[in-house]
Amino acid sequence: MQELPKFSDIEAAAKRISGEAVVTPLLENAKLNALVGGRIFMKAECLQRTGSFKFRGAWNCISKLDPARSKGGVVAYSTGNHAQGVAAAAQLRGMAALIVMPEDTPEIKSANTKSYGAEIVTYDRATEDRAEIANHYVAKRGAVLVPPFEHADIIAGQGTCGLEIINELYGRNVELDDMLVNCGGGGLTAGVALAFSQKSPKTKVHSVEPEGFDDYARSLRSGIREKNARAAGSICDALLTPQPGEMTFAMNKGRLAEGYVVSEAEVRRAVRFAFETLKLVVEPGGAAGLAAVLIGKVAAKGKNIGIILSGGNVDPKLFVEILMEA
Amino acid sequence: MQELPKFSDIEAAAKRISGEAVVTPLLENAKLNALVGGRIFMKAECLQRTGSFKFRGAWNCISKLDPARSKGGVVAYSTGNHAQGVAAAAQLRGMAALIVMPEDTPEIKSANTKSYGAEIVTYDRATEDRAEIANHYVAKRGAVLVPPFEHADIIAGQGTCGLEIINELYGRNVELDDMLVNCGGGGLTAGVALAFSQKSPKTKVHSVEPEGFDDYARSLRSGIREKNARAAGSICDALLTPQPGEMTFAMNKGRLAEGYVVSEAEVRRAVRFAFETLKLVVEPGGAAGLAAVLIGKVAAKGKNIGIILSGGNVDPKLFVEILMEA
Repeated sequence: MQELPKFSDIEAAAKRISGEAVVTPLLENAKLNALVGGRIFMKAECLQRTGSFKFRGAWNCISKLDPARSKGGVVAYSTGNHAQGVAAAAQLRGMAALIVMPEDTPEIKSANTKSYGAEIVTYDRATEDRAEIANHYVAKRGAVLVPPFEHADIIAGQGTCGLEIINELYGRNVELDDMLVNCGGGGLTAGVALAFSQKSPKTKVHSVEPEGFDDYARSLRSGIREKNARAAGSICDALLTPQPGEMTFAMNKGRLAEGYVVSEAEVRRAVRFAFETLKLVVEPGGAAGLAAVLIGKVAAKGKNIGIILSGGNVDPKLFVEILMEA
Repeated sequence: MQELPKFSDIEAAAKRISGEAVVTPLLENAKLNALVGGRIFMKAECLQRTGSFKFRGAWNCISKLDPARSKGGVVAYSTGNHAQGVAAAAQLRGMAALIVMPEDTPEIKSANTKSYGAEIVTYDRATEDRAEIANHYVAKRGAVLVPPFEHADIIAGQGTCGLEIINELYGRNVELDDMLVNCGGGGLTAGVALAFSQKSPKTKVHSVEPEGFDDYARSLRSGIREKNARAAGSICDALLTPQPGEMTFAMNKGRLAEGYVVSEAEVRRAVRFAFETLKLVVEPGGAAGLAAVLIGKVAAKGKNIGIILSGGNVDPKLFVEILMEA
C-alpha cells in the first residue's frame, strides 16, 4: 500500500488546482431548509469543470507529471466521471489519455470523455477486470496509471472539496453537525473525512451509498473490506465499485460515523427535487446524499448538514424518464 | 411617473436584501469559454430564492411596508416569476398576497406561487387588462400594489444583481466589455444598467429579447416606446410584456447599447446547452442571453461578457420536450 495522504497534502493540492478547478458554490435553499427544519449546505460539484468533483484529483495528480518524461501519456479506468476528469487534465497538460470504461457507461460520459481528446477502450463490467486491462496498456505504452481512488494525489485532490466547504462555512460562522459524502471507492470520502478530522473534528462524516452497493456501510460495521454481491445494476453508475479501496478504507475506518444507504426510488426523487427546486442538474450517483436528507435518514431538525452534489453527468434520456415519473 | 431610482437606492437595496436573498454565484464554464473564444460570466439567478431574480425587487419593496398598516396585504400581476417573488416576500412579512396571473402561466409557476400561501386570480392575456384587474383588488381590499417593473424599489432591487456582478468581478480583476440582460418590461435591465453606468461605465449593456417580442430593441432604435404585435405565443413566458415601461425606458434610453433578438429555436438550444454542459436548469426566458452568446450575436472572441441566467422555473413537460429534440 502507498503512503496515505496527510492534511498538508490537501493544502498543497488546493494550491495546485487553484485557477484550473472551479471553486464551486456552497448553496442553501430556503425551501429545502424549511422542509427538513435545519440548514442544508450543498456543495455544487455538478458545476465543477467536467461536471463532477473528479477533476480535482485528476488535475492534482496529472499536473505533477512531466509531459516530456511521460511520453506514453496517462491511462485510467473509470465509470465515467474520473474518465472525464483525467481526459480534461491530460488535455490541459498536452498528454495523451487512454480510458478503460464499462460498456454500459452513460452515453454523455463517453461522449464528453472523447470531447477532451481521450481514446476509449470498453470492457464488460461483469466478466472483465478493468485494472488488468488498464495495466496492459500502461506496460505497452509506457504510460502512467491514474487510478480512480487508490492514490495519495487523487485522495488529496478530492479532499480540497472538503477543505473548501470548511473554509466557506468558517467565513459564515457555521460548523456542520454532519457531513454526507456520496461514496463509491471512497476517494472523495477519504479526502473529505481527512479535511474534517483536521479542521472540524466535531463534524460526523458519513458515507452514502445506493442499495445493493453498500460495501462501505457494511465494511464500517464489520471492520473489514466487504464486497458487493453485484457489479452492475443501479442508476447510480458513479458509485458502483466492488469494495472499499485498501487505502481509502485504511483512512476512513477510524474517521467515519455510520454509513447511510438509499434506495433507487429515493435517489430518483432527489434528482427530481434538484430539478424542480434547486434548479440543478444532478446525476443519480450525485444525489445520494440529497436523497438521504430528503427521506430523513439523517436527523436534520435544528442542525447544520453538509452534502455534496457530486456530479451532473446524466444522460438526457434517463433524466427525462425521471422527470416523467412525477 | 414616479421618481426614478438612483445608484444609492441600489446600495440601500443591497443592504435590505442581505440575509434573505441568495448572493448567487457568478460562474464560468471552461467548455463555453473555449467554444466562443472569450470569457463568459454567468450570474446564476436560477439559483436565487424562488428560482429567479424577481425576489430581489419584491423583497426590497415589501420589506419596507409596515404589515400593521397594510392589513389588506399586497397585490401583484405577473407572468409567474414576479408572482413567486412577491408571494415569498409577503409570506416572510406575514402579509396576504393576491396575484393576478395569465391563464397560460406555466403550471410550476402557479403551483410555486400557491406554495408561498398566495391567492391566485387568472385572466386572459389576449383580451383582459391585468393592471385593471389588479387595481380592482387593490381598491377593494385596501392592499398595496407591487408592480412588476414600474416602481423605484423594484428596479433598485433588481439592480442589486448588477451590483453583485460588478463587485465580484472587481475582486477577480475583470471588467466586462458587454453585459447582456434578458428583457421583458425592462426592470432588471434598468437596474443593471444603472449599476454599470455608475461602477463600470465602459461596459456596454444590451437587452436581449425573443423574436416577436422585441419591443425594447425597436424602441431603442426609434427613441419611443414601441408595442409588440402579439401579447402571447412564445416559450419565453417571462419576457412577454406589451411594451417597455415608462420608467424603465426613461432610464434605459440613454444607457443601453444595441438590443439583441433571439429566435425560439436558439433559446431551446441554449436551454439544452445549460442542461448538458452547465448542469443548470434554466427556463426559456432565462436563457435568452446565453442563446445570444452561443449564436455569436455578440462578438465574444477575446472579450469578457456577462449574462444573467435570470430564472429556472420551467415546467418539466416543456423541459422534457426540449431535451428530446437533441
